[in-house]
Amino acid sequence: MADSPNCDLKSLSPLQLFERVTEQGEKVRALKAGKAPKDEIDAAVKMLLSLKLSYKTTTGQDYQAGLPPKDLVLINNGTTKEENEDFVDPWTVQTSNAKGVDYDKLIVRFGSSKIDTDLINRIERATGKKPHHFLRRGIFFSHRDMDQILDAYENKKSFYLYTGRGPSSQAMHIGHFNTFMFTKWLQEVFDVPLVIQLTDDEKYLWKDLTTEKAYEYAKENAKDIIACGFDVNKTFIFSDLDYLGASTGFYKNIVKVQKHVTFNQVKGIFGFTDSDCIGKISFPAIQAAPSFSSSFPQIFNGKENIQCLIPCGIDQDPYFRMTRDVAPRIGLPKPALLHSVFFPALQGAQTKMSSSDPNSSIFLTDTPKQIKTKINKHAFSGGRDTIEEHRKYGGNCDVDVSFMYLTFFLEDDDRLEQLKQAYTSGELLTGELKKVLIETLQPLVAAHQERRKQVTDEMVQQFMTPRKLAFEF
Amino acid sequence: MADSPNCDLKSLSPLQLFERVTEQGEKVRALKAGKAPKDEIDAAVKMLLSLKLSYKTTTGQDYQAGLPPKDLVLINNGTTKEENEDFVDPWTVQTSNAKGVDYDKLIVRFGSSKIDTDLINRIERATGKKPHHFLRRGIFFSHRDMDQILDAYENKKSFYLYTGRGPSSQAMHIGHFNTFMFTKWLQEVFDVPLVIQLTDDEKYLWKDLTTEKAYEYAKENAKDIIACGFDVNKTFIFSDLDYLGASTGFYKNIVKVQKHVTFNQVKGIFGFTDSDCIGKISFPAIQAAPSFSSSFPQIFNGKENIQCLIPCGIDQDPYFRMTRDVAPRIGLPKPALLHSVFFPALQGAQTKMSSSDPNSSIFLTDTPKQIKTKINKHAFSGGRDTIEEHRKYGGNCDVDVSFMYLTFFLEDDDRLEQLKQAYTSGELLTGELKKVLIETLQPLVAAHQERRKQVTDEMVQQFMTPRKLAFEF
Repeated sequence: MADSPNCDLKSLSPLQLFERVTEQGEKVRALKAGKAPKDEIDAAVKMLLSLKLSYKTTTGQDYQAGLPPKDLVLINNGTTKEENEDFVDPWTVQTSNAKGVDYDKLIVRFGSSKIDTDLINRIERATGKKPHHFLRRGIFFSHRDMDQILDAYENKKSFYLYTGRGPSSQAMHIGHFNTFMFTKWLQEVFDVPLVIQLTDDEKYLWKDLTTEKAYEYAKENAKDIIACGFDVNKTFIFSDLDYLGASTGFYKNIVKVQKHVTFNQVKGIFGFTDSDCIGKISFPAIQAAPSFSSSFPQIFNGKENIQCLIPCGIDQDPYFRMTRDVAPRIGLPKPALLHSVFFPALQGAQTKMSSSDPNSSIFLTDTPKQIKTKINKHAFSGGRDTIEEHRKYGGNCDVDVSFMYLTFFLEDDDRLEQLKQAYTSGELLTGELKKVLIETLQPLVAAHQERRKQVTDEMVQQFMTPRKLAFEF
Repeated sequence: MADSPNCDLKSLSPLQLFERVTEQGEKVRALKAGKAPKDEIDAAVKMLLSLKLSYKTTTGQDYQAGLPPKDLVLINNGTTKEENEDFVDPWTVQTSNAKGVDYDKLIVRFGSSKIDTDLINRIERATGKKPHHFLRRGIFFSHRDMDQILDAYENKKSFYLYTGRGPSSQAMHIGHFNTFMFTKWLQEVFDVPLVIQLTDDEKYLWKDLTTEKAYEYAKENAKDIIACGFDVNKTFIFSDLDYLGASTGFYKNIVKVQKHVTFNQVKGIFGFTDSDCIGKISFPAIQAAPSFSSSFPQIFNGKENIQCLIPCGIDQDPYFRMTRDVAPRIGLPKPALLHSVFFPALQGAQTKMSSSDPNSSIFLTDTPKQIKTKINKHAFSGGRDTIEEHRKYGGNCDVDVSFMYLTFFLEDDDRLEQLKQAYTSGELLTGELKKVLIETLQPLVAAHQERRKQVTDEMVQQFMTPRKLAFEF
């Protein structure tokens, strides 16, 4: 990096300038963390301020960490709007925005409906319970046909919940934990059966895994799921590799879906190509089929018209758009959906937390020390580069990963609001905010580990055995 | 074959020339193999070289074994090579030749091996039984790895038989009956387990049928199959719609095959297009999976290396070419195959008998009167137009459907030869030949119907229940 930033700054593009500011910010943080001599730090800070000024002069915008100069990128690169748009499919989530995906735009693009105050109030009236903070805070932000579920529920017609997980490694991360905890809340307030699909066949098809290994991951993941506290009398967990060969109804629904979806359609929805294996091409039907109660004759007494509600990440919506398209053509009810935002990677909300990338994730198996280290080292900060700046201008909660995580894990609304104000005003420093997160997460994860230790193979066996649940249909 | 090749070569089409070169090449090989006198071999080789020269002069191309003169076929017939060739895939058999498909060419095209006298003799030695007339008469004419099956069998290593049927209507026709009777013979002489797949899922995917109807057809067809006289202790009959949901091994093999076959491959093998449903596209894996013993853990005690032998119509070979390609890549043994010719439609050997076309078929449910009427009305005759002509020139057994059927159903070799000579000489009239066929078929079908009446729903249930058979593995 050049010592004098000014000489060559005019020749830099806005994006290059942006990157120089970011690099210099990191250098300042490193010097401070390494307790470098004061004059060295001062010089680095001076250069940082100078770079920020150049950035503002060139782009007409204030530098914002994690937010590249959007419009100018377009002009400079000649990229199309689509290329620049958020990319969301079941395998990849990518946005250039440090605040994360633009969910309002996604609702429009996917054609779903926003979970608004009216709907949240209606859920409260129907269940007589205070809505979960994931609803209150817009973490579950979008839905399909939730009003129909409530219409029926109010008329004493029950439904069932379906969610799932692709078991790609032995441990789940805290993002998965969230979806299951929310699902558990739904199950408790509505008192309905729940089926949880572990797509070990999907992982076998997509990854370099044997079927045995994929099934082993599925069983390990089942332990984590069980440790979330599900009631064995109300919950059925199944591995595809296992249950497909043990159900009189599942394959029949799979083949029905497979008859009504063409290669052209899955190509359009999932981006498959002619070089993809036929297993991938037909897999969407396997994720679709649990949306129909006749896939679980042991639970629903063979009835095929029990409505299904699917809480899931919005990235899974393509599967269920397809399912909802097929449902009326095979004479079965469309599943309803509740969509959540992505759980951000530690590095920032540009992408979601992924088990396959250990650096982006906090696992439910992490020790208190690992949690602390990962957050301190990797959690992207919306704080300012220097304490002085931070005190003066305040931090940015919109891009701060620690703050985002607290919206998931800190149930106390007042406390969260206090933290937000303190951080935004500059009163609370990045390290302090991280400390709150660490102290919130450590006991949660430790408690989970404690519960997980008590999950025996016999319990897994019980949850994964096809059987009647504690409901009459 | 002409003794002097030169006199008439100019009048031959490039394709005829090609065939002459091929024949002459075979003659040379036969002479050498038979250790013929040197001068006889020399003369044959000289003629071969002369034929090759004529071929090159006429076509401008070097003779290449197995590669007919493509462009010149185009010029001569105005058809493309593909149009002019026999068309054979699992759904359609079509040839312009009244004698039926050219099976020798099919062996070359499919890359299988001819069932020759040596192999038939070896089967006789291995089993100590006279070879079935389907082998003696070239009705089962082609194989893959049957020698390996025999190698292993001679070393006391057993195998199992796998065959199947697509249940598209309630009744089977006499062509299906043949394959099952031959399979039964194989089972008896080798004393091995047999699995019979009823692809009701395939029929659901391809036809305008409900899954319930397809499954009903499967059970009805199972009755016809059982009536062929299979031993319940040695035979497992299964419907895909049923068994896929009842086996711990079947789906695992399906998904393994599905991972190792791309859309490009099934497009090439089966002619699928982007508009085909994903069920069709992935179906080949479902027909492939019973080729692996681990699809039947209840029979093979979980062992996955028991060799499979598949007797089937040559039109099913594409499925098993694919299976054999995948097998080593998933660490499983390639299935061996015995291929039969098609059972000709009543109207002639240009196409095969099909349940979907009642006029082309004699069903196992037909009354003696229906059999008589269908044969008299529809069976294509190789006889002459008038009795006088017939007496003078004789009939043509190569295209006569009644005679073809007799090669299937009349086990007595001497009687068949007598009929052939009498018909070819003109001594036997078409009506008389048809009468022999009618009198052969009527009691066979009646006896089948008598046995079928005794097949109860309980017996079907027994055959279709996954269970251990009377073999130790």
